Amino acid sequence: MQITNQQVRLAARPHGLPKEGDWELTSEPVADPGDGQVAVKVLMLSLDPAMRGWMSDAPSYLPPVGIGEVMRAGAVGQVIGSNHADYSEGDHVVGMLGAQEYAVVDGAGLTKVDPSLAPLPTYLGALGMTGLTAYFGLLEIGEAKEGDTVVVSGAAGAVGSVTGQIAKIRGCRAVGIAGGREKCRFVTDELGFDAAIDYKAEDVGRALHREAPDGIDVYFDNVGGDILDAALANLAMHARVVICGAISQYNEDSMRGPSNYMMLLVRRAKMQGYLVFDFASKYQDAIADLASWLRAGKLKAREDVVDGGISAFPGTFLRLFRGENVGKLVLNVADSA
Amino acid sequence: MQITNQQVRLAARPHGLPKEGDWELTSEPVADPGDGQVAVKVLMLSLDPAMRGWMSDAPSYLPPVGIGEVMRAGAVGQVIGSNHADYSEGDHVVGMLGAQEYAVVDGAGLTKVDPSLAPLPTYLGALGMTGLTAYFGLLEIGEAKEGDTVVVSGAAGAVGSVTGQIAKIRGCRAVGIAGGREKCRFVTDELGFDAAIDYKAEDVGRALHREAPDGIDVYFDNVGGDILDAALANLAMHARVVICGAISQYNEDSMRGPSNYMMLLVRRAKMQGYLVFDFASKYQDAIADLASWLRAGKLKAREDVVDGGISAFPGTFLRLFRGENVGKLVLNVADSA
Repeated sequence: MQITNQQVRLAARPHGLPKEGDWELTSEPVADPGDGQVAVKVLMLSLDPAMRGWMSDAPSYLPPVGIGEVMRAGAVGQVIGSNHADYSEGDHVVGMLGAQEYAVVDGAGLTKVDPSLAPLPTYLGALGMTGLTAYFGLLEIGEAKEGDTVVVSGAAGAVGSVTGQIAKIRGCRAVGIAGGREKCRFVTDELGFDAAIDYKAEDVGRALHREAPDGIDVYFDNVGGDILDAALANLAMHARVVICGAISQYNEDSMRGPSNYMMLLVRRAKMQGYLVFDFASKYQDAIADLASWLRAGKLKAREDVVDGGISAFPGTFLRLFRGENVGKLVLNVADSA
Repeated sequence: MQITNQQVRLAARPHGLPKEGDWELTSEPVADPGDGQVAVKVLMLSLDPAMRGWMSDAPSYLPPVGIGEVMRAGAVGQVIGSNHADYSEGDHVVGMLGAQEYAVVDGAGLTKVDPSLAPLPTYLGALGMTGLTAYFGLLEIGEAKEGDTVVVSGAAGAVGSVTGQIAKIRGCRAVGIAGGREKCRFVTDELGFDAAIDYKAEDVGRALHREAPDGIDVYFDNVGGDILDAALANLAMHARVVICGAISQYNEDSMRGPSNYMMLLVRRAKMQGYLVFDFASKYQDAIADLASWLRAGKLKAREDVVDGGISAFPGTFLRLFRGENVGKLVLNVADSA
């Protein structure tokens, strides 16, 4: 039986905010898995701001997605055929499966997940790359410790929402910056941040001065732009600025740098970038921590799951840049294999 | 006998490049030193880009010089009267004596220096705050180690010229960025840097790609602006960017941030600011290193000593921003007590 695989391929390099026509929907038969390969039916697709960077051909940490190639994407899926000893039909796996309905990939790049322990979307969020990104950024790069004031931008987003919760678990004061009253309420009332700043309603610099009167010890940045500058102006001595993302800048023709960067000198602070992949050797311990916090109810996983199948990919992805998601944005591609 | 003290006082907060009228020359009698105080005749005045920052009332690491106050300045001088047990008439001392002919200051803020071991201007340069700034910035913040490629901007300036030489002493490849052929020749032929890039004559980004083909491990920044951006675009993995100064930006109405700062993420790099004062507990060991390198001829101290007395302060200071000095800029206020 021939199965058809609908795929989202990159059609053009976007200028500014991507538009639907920058991708095209194509289809081809699903190939049989070769030696060491696994055929996976994609169930849930991870939608991340970083994917905007993969669409550009500026030098970055991964090669750009080529024109005509399937859009790179993390996903969780179910094995429908295997030529790899570690995987059997019916197994649930997570990996870089791409924006498509079926993926035939090397088994070596996959990780098995157990849907009885957590809902599938959580393996893309708090128990996946999202949670790990928050964990290592805050604890390894930010060196957050008990008593620190931690400020997180994009606080209602996938990584930000986990970052602030880990800060609380580790005994820090957690202040979130988010857009709109609903997100701010989510951050404080549902996630337990100590305070939230609505950047659409108030001056962020003044609000940071109020919420972090002794200065910011760790600033975890997901957004760049004016908010990064406001945070730099409010650093405590020896602060750590964690550069995780810059969603406000990804669609700009030219990036704007932080004009307050000399506050790094005034406050003897450091600003550091990282990628979660660098900490692969520590994933297992981190996942154990995250899973135990989830079980204990100290960490709440929140996913924003959108239905619509693979053809809804472009429109769903663009929600990230309109700030429409709360928590981890996930596209439901199929319910089961 | 009444001695008259000519003083340079701040008259106005400058907008952009300071002009002569932003200071005024005043005079008053020299007071007798009180308990624990020392009267010092100023001989050599240190002229530093950081003094531009002290003239502004933006928040910084020191309070601004008040309007009507003597301009803050480091200097070397000779004791002419002492009410402090550690100092006697004739002693040479270094400290924050201010832009004036005589200073009456607490003895606790002074350090004795020996003019038989090094010329007096060297105690403001390689054996003074300048040398210490280079030393701690490169070795503690930049973590420079053997085999690293170290790039220094403002390489013919006070701090830059010492930084590149310490990099060579520690077994690094040293690449300097400076303005003009003469300065570039000074940096390579006299100071022994491996290469120099003339930012007035060539594209710095392309030149960095040529001179640091495997990327920059330590970028020591004295200038900010376009050159900082070019360096960020050429970082090696896990690079360290040392923020020492930003002379290109000090006279701008609004600072420009480094638009390539996301290269910190791409290259998993850090950018860190510091002040030499933070390392006071290690000054003695550092000075011992610097002095031994000077004696051994491995480190060359170069000062640009300008005559003219205290009234020449404004015009001499402004040479820094026209890039006219080579090495440490020093104003000769008097030849001896």
